[in-house]
Amino acid sequence: MPPEIDTPIITLTTDFGRRDHYVASMKGVIFQIAPRARVIDVTHEIDPQNIPGAAFVLGQVLAWYPPDTIHVVVVDPGVGTNRDIIAARYARQTIIAPDNGIVSLVHQSYKIEAARIVNNPQLALTQVSNTFHGRDIIAPAAAHLAAGVSFNDLGTPTDHLEILQLARPTIEDHKRITGQVIHVDRFGNLITNISQHDLDGVLDSKHPATVSLDDQNFGHLRATYAEVTPGEALALVGSTGFLEVAVHLGNAKDTLNADIGAKVIVERTDH
Amino acid sequence: MPPEIDTPIITLTTDFGRRDHYVASMKGVIFQIAPRARVIDVTHEIDPQNIPGAAFVLGQVLAWYPPDTIHVVVVDPGVGTNRDIIAARYARQTIIAPDNGIVSLVHQSYKIEAARIVNNPQLALTQVSNTFHGRDIIAPAAAHLAAGVSFNDLGTPTDHLEILQLARPTIEDHKRITGQVIHVDRFGNLITNISQHDLDGVLDSKHPATVSLDDQNFGHLRATYAEVTPGEALALVGSTGFLEVAVHLGNAKDTLNADIGAKVIVERTDH
Amino acid sequence: MPPEIDTPIITLTTDFGRRDHYVASMKGVIFQIAPRARVIDVTHEIDPQNIPGAAFVLGQVLAWYPPDTIHVVVVDPGVGTNRDIIAARYARQTIIAPDNGIVSLVHQSYKIEAARIVNNPQLALTQVSNTFHGRDIIAPAAAHLAAGVSFNDLGTPTDHLEILQLARPTIEDHKRITGQVIHVDRFGNLITNISQHDLDGVLDSKHPATVSLDDQNFGHLRATYAEVTPGEALALVGSTGFLEVAVHLGNAKDTLNADIGAKVIVERTDH
Repeated sequence: MPPEIDTPIITLTTDFGRRDHYVASMKGVIFQIAPRARVIDVTHEIDPQNIPGAAFVLGQVLAWYPPDTIHVVVVDPGVGTNRDIIAARYARQTIIAPDNGIVSLVHQSYKIEAARIVNNPQLALTQVSNTFHGRDIIAPAAAHLAAGVSFNDLGTPTDHLEILQLARPTIEDHKRITGQVIHVDRFGNLITNISQHDLDGVLDSKHPATVSLDDQNFGHLRATYAEVTPGEALALVGSTGFLEVAVHLGNAKDTLNADIGAKVIVERTDH
Repeated sequence: MPPEIDTPIITLTTDFGRRDHYVASMKGVIFQIAPRARVIDVTHEIDPQNIPGAAFVLGQVLAWYPPDTIHVVVVDPGVGTNRDIIAARYARQTIIAPDNGIVSLVHQSYKIEAARIVNNPQLALTQVSNTFHGRDIIAPAAAHLAAGVSFNDLGTPTDHLEILQLARPTIEDHKRITGQVIHVDRFGNLITNISQHDLDGVLDSKHPATVSLDDQNFGHLRATYAEVTPGEALALVGSTGFLEVAVHLGNAKDTLNADIGAKVIVERTDH
Repeated sequence: MPPEIDTPIITLTTDFGRRDHYVASMKGVIFQIAPRARVIDVTHEIDPQNIPGAAFVLGQVLAWYPPDTIHVVVVDPGVGTNRDIIAARYARQTIIAPDNGIVSLVHQSYKIEAARIVNNPQLALTQVSNTFHGRDIIAPAAAHLAAGVSFNDLGTPTDHLEILQLARPTIEDHKRITGQVIHVDRFGNLITNISQHDLDGVLDSKHPATVSLDDQNFGHLRATYAEVTPGEALALVGSTGFLEVAVHLGNAKDTLNADIGAKVIVERTDH
């Protein structure tokens, strides 16, 4: 039903902020090479150099985009060192980013289909700076891909990508899951690394769970925010597919004084 | 003169901020259904859960967009409760939003042309979460509309929309208008609920007005900021069509220590 | 190789922020006139009324956009006074902005190709406010240009544009350059007005330089951030083409307690 379309979407996820010209420079480079590209800003508010933060956002975004989307992610503390730039295909989409672990969460959830080191000099700008490979190498590679260059022409094949050792929840006795907060969103919701899948392995309809963060217990898992009164804390599986701790019409981060790294425990009640 | 174009614009107004993946997820959902849609960010900086703030922005935006534009507004404190999602047509444009009063200011200014509850399950995502109807119901409905589904197929007709009882200015003796600040913009300009129309009912060329906020009087209505010296406060009808209190090359909110809710009085001088 | 495309890009650079409806209003006006225009946000986070800040960003952006791009810049402390709005062509691109010095940095680097006062009333909105010429005059002019109106129809030719007297570095004895910080980016990098060209006039491979800011010396010019240890300060020619002072994986503004206006000295070592 969707009409045929000839230019893939290029999404941008960076830590560049929106005050400076950096993002606009990348877009200009893209439009020079792929004039019809549609460039979508995911976020430019990743905390400076925060690779796990970028990995989380990328993991969330990939699930919702159509095949052939090109995801450009530039959080690049190693720019100017000998770290590679890589292109990797998951879910029939392409990620182009520094090889520093940005793909770690996607890599947990999807089968990798192909990976290349982006080192074809014909696809980079003529002059490559030492400080802005997002503009000089990554944006042009994405634009050439959008304009029809094949994935395999991006550079040398590789079978090793940098993958972060991200904290995974631990499960004891099939009844207790210990995880941690890995992202705090704008509303102050505390999103953990405990997935619906993790919960399914422990809980069932006869054995509900209680959830606690530090020493605060939120009772059993809820389905919606509105099951508790305004201002009250609760735990539910949020739209990310992960367990989150929230305050109904409030801010859990501020109310509970909790942040990334806080320990969250799900315990099965055997009554 | 404008060339024919086949895909309507979809605008987005939310309280999601720009740090998280939420907005990008909605756009991905839209592009999967309507690959050629043009998605325009109005703002994602509505204060969390601030429905009147979203209503103000929507009221300002509708005036400037072409027919068939689809305005998606997601400020949704009631997500997961039994509040409806509605689609309403004003000025030949469509608004899709939770039924929580977001259309209130538009409803004051425009005749409603049609309204539906958005409850056609075929237009929602297969799995609808309890916490993110913006992504799971509203974005897909907007995208289907952009891709050619008819307004009437969105769901059941309704003749009741939630409308907020917004503070309206009071007019005494045809000579005195008492209103209040309803929006503070980035420059610190204090925008009131007193419209040009309200002023026209009281003022004429023989009877100019003086404007005051709390106990501070700004003299007569001005036409431009530059009629006063830098740093001086003034009152004029701003680009919104509403009376605003400003400081020339300064910030009225900070200088006058005033905010949303502050009382503003326009008084006709009968000399 | 790029496919033919019929609508130029319109970029937007303003001090409007992203909370309000102002940017969206301008886009609506553009789409009414040029439905196929592609509108790219450069930034809306220029500090209110900061003309040199806008001039810097515009100077950086122009280098990367294709011919026929239209750059709309609205930082307009003089709105409602008799300042003109101008359109100027550099590098086969068009800038439309208030005539207040916004083109100053571009004017230093590129030959001006044509300039007009934007005063053709047929291209403005029917009702022009006194407070928002960005929406009422500049956006429609840009959209008409994108939709095919010729540059010369924008208004009266002019050979005088307002150009700011920007601080330029001074060079003594062919061995010492004194400049200053003109921009601080999101990472806290301190970008100076000393260009690669300025450096080339003083340095050569036999005579390296040392760089200092206030009383702090950063040793010789580096090529990449990673040449120093994390947390250490350094100086290099950044992606802007200007000398910048940075802290590797840190924030130079905070670490060095320096800001716009700080003096930076490059001194040739004659050993």
